[in-house]
Amino acid sequence: METHKPEDSIFELLTTYNELNSSRIEELDEEPSPLEFMRYVARNTPFVVRRGAEDWTATRTWNAGVLRSTLAGHRVNVAVTPFGNADAPTPDGQGHTIFAKPHEEDQDFGQFLEYLIRQEILGSVGSGQESSKVGEVRYAQTQNDNLRHEYVTLFSQVEKSIAFARIALERDPDAINLWIGNSRSVTALHRDNYENIYVQIAGRKHFVLLPPLFQPCVNEQDLKPATYVRAGGEGEEGLVLRMDETVEENGDGAPKVPFATWDPDAPKVRATPYSHLAEPMRVSLEPGDMLYLPAMW
Amino acid sequence: METHKPEDSIFELLTTYNELNSSRIEELDEEPSPLEFMRYVARNTPFVVRRGAEDWTATRTWNAGVLRSTLAGHRVNVAVTPFGNADAPTPDGQGHTIFAKPHEEDQDFGQFLEYLIRQEILGSVGSGQESSKVGEVRYAQTQNDNLRHEYVTLFSQVEKSIAFARIALERDPDAINLWIGNSRSVTALHRDNYENIYVQIAGRKHFVLLPPLFQPCVNEQDLKPATYVRAGGEGEEGLVLRMDETVEENGDGAPKVPFATWDPDAPKVRATPYSHLAEPMRVSLEPGDMLYLPAMW
Repeated sequence: METHKPEDSIFELLTTYNELNSSRIEELDEEPSPLEFMRYVARNTPFVVRRGAEDWTATRTWNAGVLRSTLAGHRVNVAVTPFGNADAPTPDGQGHTIFAKPHEEDQDFGQFLEYLIRQEILGSVGSGQESSKVGEVRYAQTQNDNLRHEYVTLFSQVEKSIAFARIALERDPDAINLWIGNSRSVTALHRDNYENIYVQIAGRKHFVLLPPLFQPCVNEQDLKPATYVRAGGEGEEGLVLRMDETVEENGDGAPKVPFATWDPDAPKVRATPYSHLAEPMRVSLEPGDMLYLPAMW
Repeated sequence: METHKPEDSIFELLTTYNELNSSRIEELDEEPSPLEFMRYVARNTPFVVRRGAEDWTATRTWNAGVLRSTLAGHRVNVAVTPFGNADAPTPDGQGHTIFAKPHEEDQDFGQFLEYLIRQEILGSVGSGQESSKVGEVRYAQTQNDNLRHEYVTLFSQVEKSIAFARIALERDPDAINLWIGNSRSVTALHRDNYENIYVQIAGRKHFVLLPPLFQPCVNEQDLKPATYVRAGGEGEEGLVLRMDETVEENGDGAPKVPFATWDPDAPKVRATPYSHLAEPMRVSLEPGDMLYLPAMW
């Protein structure tokens, strides 16, 4: 535990916030009205609607077989990394932290899904040495409104928009994205300047949420970007990081990426003097659950 | 104009805010719905509803005669200062700025109103030396829910609550206050941690509003508090500031008051390096106009 001077206003701010706010997420049993939703937006506070999307066609019907047949013959964009570290701060092996971007490639959807399932089975039975052989991590995680483009054949099976949010915010969704991964799919601590409604269709996802106020805890740094490329064949040993090429005249390399380098799940690593004050809100979503993730959380 | 280093993030923040936001207040023609209001709360943005309260009994009927007869014989709390500087940063004559609190006294309502009117007439015809003889400033400005207490006989003539705000915020008003003054009544730049709906019943009021972000412009300082006392008879020459007595064991005097010392209407005085970046939102209210003044503005 650090010691702080009495006049450390950031320390005071964060500890006061913790005293006044619970790190338990608010749980609703049904979708809020637009006005109720707007109260959460005004307070910049997340909530989860348990089973709020349980009646969606997608929630009721999607499984591996349905997806496989619906998307048979489709090719989809897949992010490939050795450790699930797509768009994540990553040690470069020489004492620095860099921003690792995934290798992206189009894969046949059926083969992609097969890989996810086999890896999941292999990973759950393997241990020790074996688990290090589970291979590269593949995650369909584009954020370019893919459910109205790449996966448009599935779009009719979800709600076109979330009514309470559309009415409250007076706009249709900017983007609707579908993400498909397995238990190795990870997204690094980050923030978006968007109000997000996340719906769990199948499987489970575990969120770790920090309020914007806890910015002093996350150790944001300007990281040099690098991208994984396939050096050999498939498998994590075949992926190597290559620094992004310079696009600037000063020859300093590609523009650096400001990014949180602290991980609430490895709280001793790359910590700031304030990191230990962070009390993340943790929430696990089950199929049909709906999460409001406020902008900048 | 100050020069700023390129890495001055406060400078960047304030200039970017100015680029992205208008300093013109949004004007509505009718009261918003609770949901529409909540959008303003979420954006922490003021608006004015022109003539939103024009149908109130108070707006339609109040004038000096009505108030005089309704409150005949009542005594009301009046804040008395030489310059309208009630709860305001004030030079102490020895190079320091102190926090001046008004002399408070109960006055017969009829005599109080008569004083306001006579001073207004005198002030509007006087000039130069004459105008310095207009005398002390009197302002009925208590904030202790006075319309449901001190002025309860008038309460039936205003709305018991502002429906759009009550429904949106899910609570009745914490306080409903009536303020009565003349053109010499001034309130120093300050902020409250309350959502406020201000309704102009009679006369005009000129607001100068700054967003919370512009905190670096206002030169907040810890000021020693002092209170006006009547040393002689009536008139500004009779009011002197007396430092508040110590209530602390360390003998340093009464606890200091953190308060903005910069005045947007005297922008060169007590300025910070950021004060010139402030682009205050100015709005004048006419009878029946309604202003949403967000918390912390």
